[in-house]
Amino acid sequence: MRDVVVIGAGMTRFGELWNKSIKDIFVEAAQNAIEDAGVDHIDSMYVGAMSPGLFVGQEHLGAVMADYLGVNPVPATRVESACASGGASFRQAFFEVASGASDIVLAGGVEKMTDGADVTDTLATAADQEYEVYHGITFPGLYAMIARAHMEQYGTTREQLAAVAVKNHRNGAKNPNAQFRNEVTPEQVMNSTMVADPLRLLDCSPVSDGGAAVILASMDVAKKLKKNPIRVIASAQASDSIALHSRKSITTLNSVVKAAEKAYRMADKKPSDMNLVEVHDCFTIAEIVVSEDLGFFEKGKGGEAVANGWTSIECNRVPFNTSGGLKSKGHPVGATGIAQIIELYEQLNGKAGARQVKDAHVGMAQNMGGSGASCVIHILEAK
Amino acid sequence: MRDVVVIGAGMTRFGELWNKSIKDIFVEAAQNAIEDAGVDHIDSMYVGAMSPGLFVGQEHLGAVMADYLGVNPVPATRVESACASGGASFRQAFFEVASGASDIVLAGGVEKMTDGADVTDTLATAADQEYEVYHGITFPGLYAMIARAHMEQYGTTREQLAAVAVKNHRNGAKNPNAQFRNEVTPEQVMNSTMVADPLRLLDCSPVSDGGAAVILASMDVAKKLKKNPIRVIASAQASDSIALHSRKSITTLNSVVKAAEKAYRMADKKPSDMNLVEVHDCFTIAEIVVSEDLGFFEKGKGGEAVANGWTSIECNRVPFNTSGGLKSKGHPVGATGIAQIIELYEQLNGKAGARQVKDAHVGMAQNMGGSGASCVIHILEAK
Repeated sequence: MRDVVVIGAGMTRFGELWNKSIKDIFVEAAQNAIEDAGVDHIDSMYVGAMSPGLFVGQEHLGAVMADYLGVNPVPATRVESACASGGASFRQAFFEVASGASDIVLAGGVEKMTDGADVTDTLATAADQEYEVYHGITFPGLYAMIARAHMEQYGTTREQLAAVAVKNHRNGAKNPNAQFRNEVTPEQVMNSTMVADPLRLLDCSPVSDGGAAVILASMDVAKKLKKNPIRVIASAQASDSIALHSRKSITTLNSVVKAAEKAYRMADKKPSDMNLVEVHDCFTIAEIVVSEDLGFFEKGKGGEAVANGWTSIECNRVPFNTSGGLKSKGHPVGATGIAQIIELYEQLNGKAGARQVKDAHVGMAQNMGGSGASCVIHILEAK
Repeated sequence: MRDVVVIGAGMTRFGELWNKSIKDIFVEAAQNAIEDAGVDHIDSMYVGAMSPGLFVGQEHLGAVMADYLGVNPVPATRVESACASGGASFRQAFFEVASGASDIVLAGGVEKMTDGADVTDTLATAADQEYEVYHGITFPGLYAMIARAHMEQYGTTREQLAAVAVKNHRNGAKNPNAQFRNEVTPEQVMNSTMVADPLRLLDCSPVSDGGAAVILASMDVAKKLKKNPIRVIASAQASDSIALHSRKSITTLNSVVKAAEKAYRMADKKPSDMNLVEVHDCFTIAEIVVSEDLGFFEKGKGGEAVANGWTSIECNRVPFNTSGGLKSKGHPVGATGIAQIIELYEQLNGKAGARQVKDAHVGMAQNMGGSGASCVIHILEAK
């Protein structure tokens, strides 16, 4: 397998982008990435998107975006793993470069969620349509059940959930591409509108439009372009049952555990080697569960860890979601996995501005779909 | 790049599978493929599907199918390139094995089209939603324009279009998995209901449910299993403008031309080396145009070639769509590209029964999305 490196990144601001179509959004991100990489062509491209068919009535998004980006006849393929579509897009680009089939591949992701479709219903197509959604449950309810079980089993508190949102908004306030650049207090989180008990509005990631893209290349290309090579030292993915009711435990996300095992093995690293971690905080409880299942904290201690500040940039023990995470940066679902990679890329290049982590050499991105039925993990390292 | 071989194949019968869900269909095909390959596990899997979100309200199809197939935590990813989703699924599996990341990968495809969604509207999401579909045109209309232009430019006749349907039904009648196992006469085709002038009902591939899967592996795995290795000697893909109105010519499909160039180069083969070809005959005109753009016949002579019988099994000059093609075998869009590979696999193994091509060693599969905005080509060879 050839070495694969990331040599460029670009994204749109995340938010309610009323005056931009899904094509405008993707093309803006892709052009930014191509310009940042300094390449004069790409060999192939991937578009991660969860549900453009339901959101905006457009499938065949690979070909659509290649056309509007002006790169025909470059091969273009859409990849979908619900909210892990971005991570999956990056993984396919990784395989293509690693195989030797292509030298320069664009991995992008996009979603346009504010254009009229019923967002909660559309997102629910990532759950088990026959056994979960048919009975009326959607994602806030599924994650609320995980939160409730975690609270009962491990004593996780309402305050600890709020600490995730507070930290991520503090980080996002420093990210020019974040949807919400405002800090929030624990009281604001705990007094916000109830969505699905115990999860309140400020425990939930928002509905967002946005696009993100990175350029992957072989080491030879990176050397020619004199790029600081940010190596992809692990790509791992795992699945779990689509429905919560099929799992032995709902307080552990088995896809995260399995993908992490593979990622650490492939990279020959352990949690303590990570200088920063981007995780899939679609709801505050998700960040807590994932921080445990990735092996950063003992099972049941993730809430305490965030409340103690151990995952803050300021503490620098192991900063989580320096970008602001899904909570503050926004969550255009297909773009999220790529935006996580962009945060690692910027941090490992020392270009993360006010949210820069000191001495960041190794970072991890954990992206998941549904209630964790898919998990994609990448580890990047600056040489 | 490592050698990649196909070691097993399985599919459902294509047709109106009223008593089977999309899960049942995919799992049946995948189990058949795994059993045929004789493997005790898979390392990873891909699911090609165009629009399960619109057809049956279920996205996240990779994870859903891994779960119902009982292979968690194996990584599972959905791939979409409209009606080329199956070919794209196979291509991603090819990259994963070629890279060395995995040794045994399942590439599948599925679509459940008869369950209630408006099929023509849903398929139209593969065209340009803003500039084509908004103005009322859907795929029969787009291909009718291609047919009309081809007739005017090259003198292609109504009888030549009918010859495609007649040949493909004759082949499909010998395929136990085909949706329509009946022969049709030129008169029946030319007197069938008008859909979009000049295309009539029997010029159009049907609405179908169905699933198909193959197992790709490294050469080492094939040797251990003592499998007759059917090598993937080319994987190529290309894009074209999503809308017909953006093309210099609508009688040539540039994605087919470009992907074919790459495929022949990678395989070090030319059209005359092919013993059989599966092409994407979503409409009769498509087979004619593609047979020219792949380089088998001079531009404008594809109609004459099929009418002369040059692409029939009986003539054995270069048999096209021995499986019955999309026209007779059926066209569950996400499954089609994989079913094409299955036909090559069976033919190259000498197991195609009544439709066996004599001395078949090399075959090509050409799968496309939309009105040719995506084209994926694979060449397989028996050693």
